[in-house]
Amino acid sequence: MVKEIQEVLPFMSYGGDYNPEQWSEDVWLEDARQMKNAGVNLVSVGIFSWAVLERQEDEFDFGWLDKVMDILHQHGVGVCLATATASTPAWFTKKYPDSVAVDKKGVPYSFGSRQHYSPSSPSYRKGISKLVRKLAERYQNHPALKMWHVNNEYGCHLSECYSEHSLRAFHDWLKEKYTNIEGLNEGWGTNFWSQRYNNWEEIDFPANQVTFYNPGQMLDYKRFMNDKIFELYKIEKAILRAITPDIPIFTNFMYQFKPLNYFEWAKEMDLVTWDSYPDPREGIPVSHAFHHDLMRSLKKGQPFFLMEQVSSHVNWRDINLTKKSGVMRLWSYSTIARGGDGIMFFQWRQGRAGAEKFHGAMIPHSNREDSRVYKEVSQLGNELKKLDSLVGTKIDAKVAIVFDWENWWAVELEGKPHNDLDYLSRVETYYKALYALNIAVDFVQPKDDLSSYEIVIAPMLYIIDEAEVANFETFVKDGGTLVVSFFSGIADKNDRIHLGGYPALLRNLLGLYVDEFVPYEHGKEQLFRSNIDTYSCSMWTDMIRLKGAEAIASYDSDWIKDTPAVTEHTYGDGKAYYVGTEPESRWVKEFVSQLAANKAVVPPLTVPVNVEVTKRSGNSGEHLIFINHNENDSEIKLGEGNSYTNLVTNEVISQNFSLKGNDVAVLLLSTN
Amino acid sequence: MVKEIQEVLPFMSYGGDYNPEQWSEDVWLEDARQMKNAGVNLVSVGIFSWAVLERQEDEFDFGWLDKVMDILHQHGVGVCLATATASTPAWFTKKYPDSVAVDKKGVPYSFGSRQHYSPSSPSYRKGISKLVRKLAERYQNHPALKMWHVNNEYGCHLSECYSEHSLRAFHDWLKEKYTNIEGLNEGWGTNFWSQRYNNWEEIDFPANQVTFYNPGQMLDYKRFMNDKIFELYKIEKAILRAITPDIPIFTNFMYQFKPLNYFEWAKEMDLVTWDSYPDPREGIPVSHAFHHDLMRSLKKGQPFFLMEQVSSHVNWRDINLTKKSGVMRLWSYSTIARGGDGIMFFQWRQGRAGAEKFHGAMIPHSNREDSRVYKEVSQLGNELKKLDSLVGTKIDAKVAIVFDWENWWAVELEGKPHNDLDYLSRVETYYKALYALNIAVDFVQPKDDLSSYEIVIAPMLYIIDEAEVANFETFVKDGGTLVVSFFSGIADKNDRIHLGGYPALLRNLLGLYVDEFVPYEHGKEQLFRSNIDTYSCSMWTDMIRLKGAEAIASYDSDWIKDTPAVTEHTYGDGKAYYVGTEPESRWVKEFVSQLAANKAVVPPLTVPVNVEVTKRSGNSGEHLIFINHNENDSEIKLGEGNSYTNLVTNEVISQNFSLKGNDVAVLLLSTN
Amino acid sequence: MVKEIQEVLPFMSYGGDYNPEQWSEDVWLEDARQMKNAGVNLVSVGIFSWAVLERQEDEFDFGWLDKVMDILHQHGVGVCLATATASTPAWFTKKYPDSVAVDKKGVPYSFGSRQHYSPSSPSYRKGISKLVRKLAERYQNHPALKMWHVNNEYGCHLSECYSEHSLRAFHDWLKEKYTNIEGLNEGWGTNFWSQRYNNWEEIDFPANQVTFYNPGQMLDYKRFMNDKIFELYKIEKAILRAITPDIPIFTNFMYQFKPLNYFEWAKEMDLVTWDSYPDPREGIPVSHAFHHDLMRSLKKGQPFFLMEQVSSHVNWRDINLTKKSGVMRLWSYSTIARGGDGIMFFQWRQGRAGAEKFHGAMIPHSNREDSRVYKEVSQLGNELKKLDSLVGTKIDAKVAIVFDWENWWAVELEGKPHNDLDYLSRVETYYKALYALNIAVDFVQPKDDLSSYEIVIAPMLYIIDEAEVANFETFVKDGGTLVVSFFSGIADKNDRIHLGGYPALLRNLLGLYVDEFVPYEHGKEQLFRSNIDTYSCSMWTDMIRLKGAEAIASYDSDWIKDTPAVTEHTYGDGKAYYVGTEPESRWVKEFVSQLAANKAVVPPLTVPVNVEVTKRSGNSGEHLIFINHNENDSEIKLGEGNSYTNLVTNEVISQNFSLKGNDVAVLLLSTN
Repeated sequence: MVKEIQEVLPFMSYGGDYNPEQWSEDVWLEDARQMKNAGVNLVSVGIFSWAVLERQEDEFDFGWLDKVMDILHQHGVGVCLATATASTPAWFTKKYPDSVAVDKKGVPYSFGSRQHYSPSSPSYRKGISKLVRKLAERYQNHPALKMWHVNNEYGCHLSECYSEHSLRAFHDWLKEKYTNIEGLNEGWGTNFWSQRYNNWEEIDFPANQVTFYNPGQMLDYKRFMNDKIFELYKIEKAILRAITPDIPIFTNFMYQFKPLNYFEWAKEMDLVTWDSYPDPREGIPVSHAFHHDLMRSLKKGQPFFLMEQVSSHVNWRDINLTKKSGVMRLWSYSTIARGGDGIMFFQWRQGRAGAEKFHGAMIPHSNREDSRVYKEVSQLGNELKKLDSLVGTKIDAKVAIVFDWENWWAVELEGKPHNDLDYLSRVETYYKALYALNIAVDFVQPKDDLSSYEIVIAPMLYIIDEAEVANFETFVKDGGTLVVSFFSGIADKNDRIHLGGYPALLRNLLGLYVDEFVPYEHGKEQLFRSNIDTYSCSMWTDMIRLKGAEAIASYDSDWIKDTPAVTEHTYGDGKAYYVGTEPESRWVKEFVSQLAANKAVVPPLTVPVNVEVTKRSGNSGEHLIFINHNENDSEIKLGEGNSYTNLVTNEVISQNFSLKGNDVAVLLLSTN
Repeated sequence: MVKEIQEVLPFMSYGGDYNPEQWSEDVWLEDARQMKNAGVNLVSVGIFSWAVLERQEDEFDFGWLDKVMDILHQHGVGVCLATATASTPAWFTKKYPDSVAVDKKGVPYSFGSRQHYSPSSPSYRKGISKLVRKLAERYQNHPALKMWHVNNEYGCHLSECYSEHSLRAFHDWLKEKYTNIEGLNEGWGTNFWSQRYNNWEEIDFPANQVTFYNPGQMLDYKRFMNDKIFELYKIEKAILRAITPDIPIFTNFMYQFKPLNYFEWAKEMDLVTWDSYPDPREGIPVSHAFHHDLMRSLKKGQPFFLMEQVSSHVNWRDINLTKKSGVMRLWSYSTIARGGDGIMFFQWRQGRAGAEKFHGAMIPHSNREDSRVYKEVSQLGNELKKLDSLVGTKIDAKVAIVFDWENWWAVELEGKPHNDLDYLSRVETYYKALYALNIAVDFVQPKDDLSSYEIVIAPMLYIIDEAEVANFETFVKDGGTLVVSFFSGIADKNDRIHLGGYPALLRNLLGLYVDEFVPYEHGKEQLFRSNIDTYSCSMWTDMIRLKGAEAIASYDSDWIKDTPAVTEHTYGDGKAYYVGTEPESRWVKEFVSQLAANKAVVPPLTVPVNVEVTKRSGNSGEHLIFINHNENDSEIKLGEGNSYTNLVTNEVISQNFSLKGNDVAVLLLSTN
Repeated sequence: MVKEIQEVLPFMSYGGDYNPEQWSEDVWLEDARQMKNAGVNLVSVGIFSWAVLERQEDEFDFGWLDKVMDILHQHGVGVCLATATASTPAWFTKKYPDSVAVDKKGVPYSFGSRQHYSPSSPSYRKGISKLVRKLAERYQNHPALKMWHVNNEYGCHLSECYSEHSLRAFHDWLKEKYTNIEGLNEGWGTNFWSQRYNNWEEIDFPANQVTFYNPGQMLDYKRFMNDKIFELYKIEKAILRAITPDIPIFTNFMYQFKPLNYFEWAKEMDLVTWDSYPDPREGIPVSHAFHHDLMRSLKKGQPFFLMEQVSSHVNWRDINLTKKSGVMRLWSYSTIARGGDGIMFFQWRQGRAGAEKFHGAMIPHSNREDSRVYKEVSQLGNELKKLDSLVGTKIDAKVAIVFDWENWWAVELEGKPHNDLDYLSRVETYYKALYALNIAVDFVQPKDDLSSYEIVIAPMLYIIDEAEVANFETFVKDGGTLVVSFFSGIADKNDRIHLGGYPALLRNLLGLYVDEFVPYEHGKEQLFRSNIDTYSCSMWTDMIRLKGAEAIASYDSDWIKDTPAVTEHTYGDGKAYYVGTEPESRWVKEFVSQLAANKAVVPPLTVPVNVEVTKRSGNSGEHLIFINHNENDSEIKLGEGNSYTNLVTNEVISQNFSLKGNDVAVLLLSTN
């Protein structure tokens, strides 16, 4: 049986992607020495090594990798061994032209960058199976092997394929889903625009069409592509699990990555890992904190790894700003604060050639150990050694935000009343308020058990089904506080309207109906007033008609003046709120704050503004983690009666302490 | 012989597109009841029904349509029966791959949206002929059948096809036009850039070329595509006319639709209808009033129908603003005010699935009869019943604006001195002045008989021929007032320059020549002064040299200072004006106003600003129609001596009355 | 042996492109008369005449050209006879489909515009060889023949081809360069992203790839396309040289034309000519002065021709502003001032049809000799007759700017720390300062002999090799002043990083290393201070560490405050400066001015602002050329002791004179 991560890696993991095949053998020993010096204890090896592992079909060359594995092991560095399937070699694409993905115009992609394989290609599937089996068989007993790193950033550049193989696979997928063609016709509403199908073979891709797409077809295509790519992962996993049943397996996820439903994927991961590259222009990277919380939530609170970050600057933005001194450390602690047990970089040694040579690394081009970058990398690596007690500890959240990939896909299909709704931004509206309040938050799916939460917030839950509605009803009936935002409850899982008045199945729970949508253009604002103050809102308003709910805020201008903007409905032992517009952030913060107060949901500690504080607890004790995003020192008031050790400085702290600007603290509660 | 529209529909027509195939049979009776309740007396049925009428080749299913026709008839609702050819079914595209249009890169469009057929495809032409014949034979005697609605919004999404069939058809079309290849070489000026052709087969499409296109080729391609699409209409019309000789036939036109020369098309229409979707952002929809006047002019003043509008909001814009309460009614009266005898919607019942499910309808998703939308729809439908005396009445205009699709095409081809001339905006420059003055205006083509007009305005008549010039000369010689704007008279019908000095053939009539063009970049203005004031102008100036004309305004800045900006030339009994720049709107209004005063051309009544007033007269009497676009009441002074009945309110009115903000009035002159 | 240009054309050449095939024969005599009248002594004939010279394969028709050549000769107009290969005829593209270039998606271009041929096509190469031979044989002894004008603006629209022929040629080119596939793998760094090749046939184009390209592959593709197009020129040249060994041969270059390495091309030119179309929006066309200097430098100071300019306005911009009265003359003198011996126009007679009919010409559509345009053209043509003493004179520059096409290509490949570095703008940063100071400047390549210069400026010399570094080291060691700007010395000729710390090979010469790059986003500025003042800089800063150099300016804000911004390093007898940022122009001017003062480099004369002054010297004497870009008169102080004749006015001038606004003067030093 697969081992727990904390069993395999019973410490804060630290390291990065390591691509020794780009360097001559004499550099490898230098690498290992510098890794050790920098506190590195884990690296990912071989992510893009297919071409040098299988140089021609069936000509395998593992000699170099054997040496690398041995050297790393000798220096105490563990290995996430990559399966090397992230990009097919040139010989493979020429020998198996069907392995190459095809664009929307029917043109196959060229070889020469990466990830050009078609997720539906039988030859690609055959090719990776052979390679993965060889790797697993060879390294199954190597002492350096800690985990399997499957492929890399699935779908990163290519999450849509329009090849003949993909079309046949799409037909099969639809057949599997709808059983008979009438089911598909009903599901896609093909009596619209004369789109009725008589058989599966008549179905084209939703690509190169003359005008608006069929939304049902588009939504199914997104599901289909997610499934096809997910199959690739599962093919590799099955082989690896069979040969090395106790080695954890994962692939690395990405930031704001819409094509893949990571909640589904996480079920097949032994560890959630993701790659985070906040743009320094963002200032405090709240949206990355959002993703840390999301990643932790994918496997119900189990610690995750930051699999890639950059020491200095990336090279794939238009302009690639450099993280100032200290920022890399600060943002690394954001991972730890939100449940991360590993901090990894892309990559170990900055490349000499190729498309990513200007992407920062732990060792810069100069190879200077007195470089700013290497010094900061080493400092952090050695500092993390003091934090092993955090490993395996968890965060206890009483607030959940509903996050649902299917809604992300559906809301952003064309042809909506407002076509810039931007699912993520609407979720962030609520997340940012909770972040600013330092209230811990989990992300959940609409069907998840909600009983452990006091407050659940469901922003723009556009598609919904009866079971999900029942889940929310149970939650509220049992005393929970539910917040639902505008454009929720509108459509079914085929993106067909729930008839009878918006928000259809949610009307009973919310105690209202929406007569019509009144979207606003960019730059136009509406006013609404609560019993406290008047606020602005934008983007969208609903014409709400009350059927049991009460208005707790109403519009204050335009032709919908005096109709309800926000409503409260007592339902069973709980309360269901409906927010029919996009309010300014000041209101959201006040609103969320009031709901939390009503349910006695509190932050770990009340701290100055722009200081993050989180609590991680477990067998090793209770930790308070502080990150000061201010340039200046902040005074932290711990209150009376407890004593802590700051693991970073080894200082003992009781009551109050001053946290330096851009500094961090990890306080372990003394248990005397 | 085909019946007059007023004979077939001797009342204000009211209704919308009706797509019963998207609903189960039990909804149909509900539909009919609600239609009757809402004052609906006409619906368009079956526009996208091909796939459910001919389910496989030669497997026709008319049962459901029989029922729908019967139910509608039983409830007093007439039917514009659509020919269902607007989109080919899936089976058809697979069986006849040549029926599918091809894009500029040679890639066939996919099935899955709509209107993907190639206008040149023989199999499409055969397919529609069979279907239309079947429909006509089956419903020729059905009492609900009022008119034939052919296809739908021809060319809406696809007005260019680059298939092999289209290329052969293009060759044939060119052969027909030029007889021999030397004619084409001469017409296209192929001695330029080594473009000479030896035979028709050497000719490619003007697509995927390396740099600037041959303008003659491009212009002919636009004519060719217009002709090919027009042939489709004529094929259907011929079949329908043969089987049902007395039933009127039409297709629905669109807003600002450049690809099709509607003046040509209108000759084959028994009724002009069009689809109007003003963006609420526009405020007063002047450009739609423009189009109402244009549509009325297409058949020389014969009443037209608004075939589609929306009750609330569309779904195909980026952000789809909702019409506020009352706006739908107000804008419906704009149709009536300018000669419309029918007000129709897309669509009757809001769709549950498909790409247009968020497009507003007469019955919203809620199916609530107390919804704002249905209430306003019903109110209008029942109000229109009072306006039957308007049916068939006409508008008498003494001013005409020259509007010419061929110029629209030619002016906007690339490679001009200024490449943002925007034909429609230049025409609107003059239309807006007349609209603000409430002076009735017709649109005419350059070769039309102009003898009934006092003033003719020809904005940017870039291509022109001798016969057209002679027509204008006759008009002015006989006392008419002609206004010609800059970049007129430049090229012939092959877009070849009329040599010898601009504006070539018009020099004699205008009494001047233009030494050169001096375009201005966006944001830069020039000044010019008349004997009244100094004004700004932009975009373009001409270096005018007088040869008989007099300057009535001259430039006041830059290196062309003191050269003429606007000239007046007495020619025969009339006057020909030349406006060599794009003046600010204040000047245009003053100028047009002065010209109108000189010719005793007056509005129906002098009314407050932002109030529209028009006059419709006929056997039923003389009507004054008022639309108050102001939020506040406006005082209307009718003058002494006449008495009117406001048909909307049944009030008798003499002298003055107060018209509420956003309200309308239709005053019928008492004939005592 | 080929004749010197001054031998063939011992006068200021004046004329333009002449396309008689677009006009009937009766116009030709009119043309010749008007040319003579306008001072025209040279025209380019037949540039796009292939279709009328070879009407079908092997059916040649030279009759019309014989007549044209004779008429021109009889009127004293010499001919640059074009080889007519600039665009293949329609019959050719149909007979030889492989002659047509293919776009990035694999779609062949259509016939119908121009320059659609593939540079790699064997049939195109065969076709032009035959045509050029025929032309050369026929006109080798015609007295009108002065020079051969090969093709036209090579690569203007099409400098990338993705045909099968091009792919095979690319493979061959790579094989030639790298000998074996391991060489290529090493050069392109294909161990990155699994990109290793086993053989040449596996290589695709860098087109239609999934994500970032391999920079080595992309750079080689640019070199390959430059070479392929260059081969076309060399094929024609070889045929022409063999048949007419004494006739000079050239093709015309373009403005800011990145695809072709004109330094390489110039080696095969007997005369450098180029086409210059400053946008009147630019005001003083400094960037065109830049190009005049660059064109003069391509053949080490030999006089060049302006082969195309426009009399009034072009037609290929979005909005085509007209040159005000006098501007065409003023800008023509900019050519002369910087070493030009010929002023030519596109084109002689404004076309009647085709894509360029609104492009200005020497004779406008009106054919009026009293038109503003023709009057100014004639005035200039007759004025130039007074300037024959300038022919063959040269400019002596003591400052050189390093300009390198390979760096232009490499710097602007994607994936850089800052992806809007814009090579030309960075070079212009320094050029503009020198232009404003009226200091003569040559452009050189990194390997050129630098010994004749006092100051060499190397902006953003991103790729560099050992030999180039040695060249710079020698220059400085021997007393030269070198300025190197940021992002220099980074990569080798395969765009692989020089490891060991930036700027690698230049560290020794510059006495520093750069720890890391700190790019700035647009709109953000940094401050730096010298011992004079504080200035702003933007776009980029370097974290500089001194190793022998001294900081002469340091940053004054942000986290890199107090680190060096600009450094000075004494090396041998000279000084090497490093500018680690993009400074504001005020600082650049002060800096360059100080360097010039230190080396006693001075302008020909100190003149008021916005007056250009240059010196051209030779056997005919020493000329000072003045161009007053001010609207007002400028006082020119010549100093005492010399006497001049203004060749334009024939006035004798000593000491001071007043130069009118927008006027020019050419002063020949009296030799008494």
